[in-house]
Amino acid sequence: MRILLIGAHGTIGQAIQTELSPRHEIITAGRNSGEVRVDLKDFASVQAMYAQVGAVDAVIAAAGNLHFGPLADMTPELMGIGIADKLMGQVNLVLAGQHVLNDGGSFTLTSGVLSHDPIVYGSSGSMVNAGIDGFVIGAAIELARGLRINAISPTVLTESLSGYGPYFRGFASVDAAKVALAFSKSVEGQQTGKIYHVQ
Amino acid sequence: MRILLIGAHGTIGQAIQTELSPRHEIITAGRNSGEVRVDLKDFASVQAMYAQVGAVDAVIAAAGNLHFGPLADMTPELMGIGIADKLMGQVNLVLAGQHVLNDGGSFTLTSGVLSHDPIVYGSSGSMVNAGIDGFVIGAAIELARGLRINAISPTVLTESLSGYGPYFRGFASVDAAKVALAFSKSVEGQQTGKIYHVQ
Repeated sequence: MRILLIGAHGTIGQAIQTELSPRHEIITAGRNSGEVRVDLKDFASVQAMYAQVGAVDAVIAAAGNLHFGPLADMTPELMGIGIADKLMGQVNLVLAGQHVLNDGGSFTLTSGVLSHDPIVYGSSGSMVNAGIDGFVIGAAIELARGLRINAISPTVLTESLSGYGPYFRGFASVDAAKVALAFSKSVEGQQTGKIYHVQ
Repeated sequence: MRILLIGAHGTIGQAIQTELSPRHEIITAGRNSGEVRVDLKDFASVQAMYAQVGAVDAVIAAAGNLHFGPLADMTPELMGIGIADKLMGQVNLVLAGQHVLNDGGSFTLTSGVLSHDPIVYGSSGSMVNAGIDGFVIGAAIELARGLRINAISPTVLTESLSGYGPYFRGFASVDAAKVALAFSKSVEGQQTGKIYHVQ
């Protein structure tokens, strides 16, 4: 398959490359790195990326920022960071990509454990990740031409514990390599409308 | 209790008034009707509403628009309608209200069945409703001063079947009066961080 991977430089992105590159052609894209530069927040940039890359069989999003911080200090602007970036950035990938992916192609988005298992400072993450999961189940039943869509919802990464561990006390971490398996299942399997919880 | 009800003129809002007004003081607010006018999309308007209304013990949101339409025709702008209105409109109510509600007060938001049970044309609704539910569980563990928050997630209303019925084939409808009971449970009980599925 020809697979477009956005966020290839991140911890999960690198693990996805390790898992999928032996069997598939991977085209990397990202904000500041990768073969193609794209700003997912900008729909025209997403459309330009698809035009540049040409026909692909799968799109993987392993990218997306949002703001962590106390609810008491949250503002519409701070909540808007995750909405524009992690949520609508990935939605933009699907809205534009549904018209250009090869028949039978797939989208695999990234959400996260906070959708259903909240932490202090994580109200934006809970909102955004749940929104992604909701979009995926809604979009799955409408995609045409055999296109599929799933979300990978990992818990905290073992590789991220040094930075995020104090915010995720009591959460069992998961290795990025195990998260990458879920991306493989989504891309190389035939399921659609699924939220793969990796923990 | 002194209860601020946004969206009092709608089908659910009227049922909430019928349920709660015998026992509580209800202040109504809305975009085009109610004792106080407010545009939930505009944070300054939400803050002005709270300043005008004064101390309240509970805030109920029974308001929120979003775009229904084919996924193939969806654009960032059309998805943005629900994000700005039903999702961030209700989030704005909480972000501003957390600083002004009486101790022990509550927020009760409205999401909906599409979060987990999608329909054709409903990708924005699935995204927005799931995002609301995610925000509620995230915010619940951070609210200070004994403040609580829950979401009511109703299926299609019996009262709406004449308009929306064809989009909800196979869904058992629920009377608005039964949905109003869930608002009563949220406001008059002591639970927090709950999504009440009413069906």
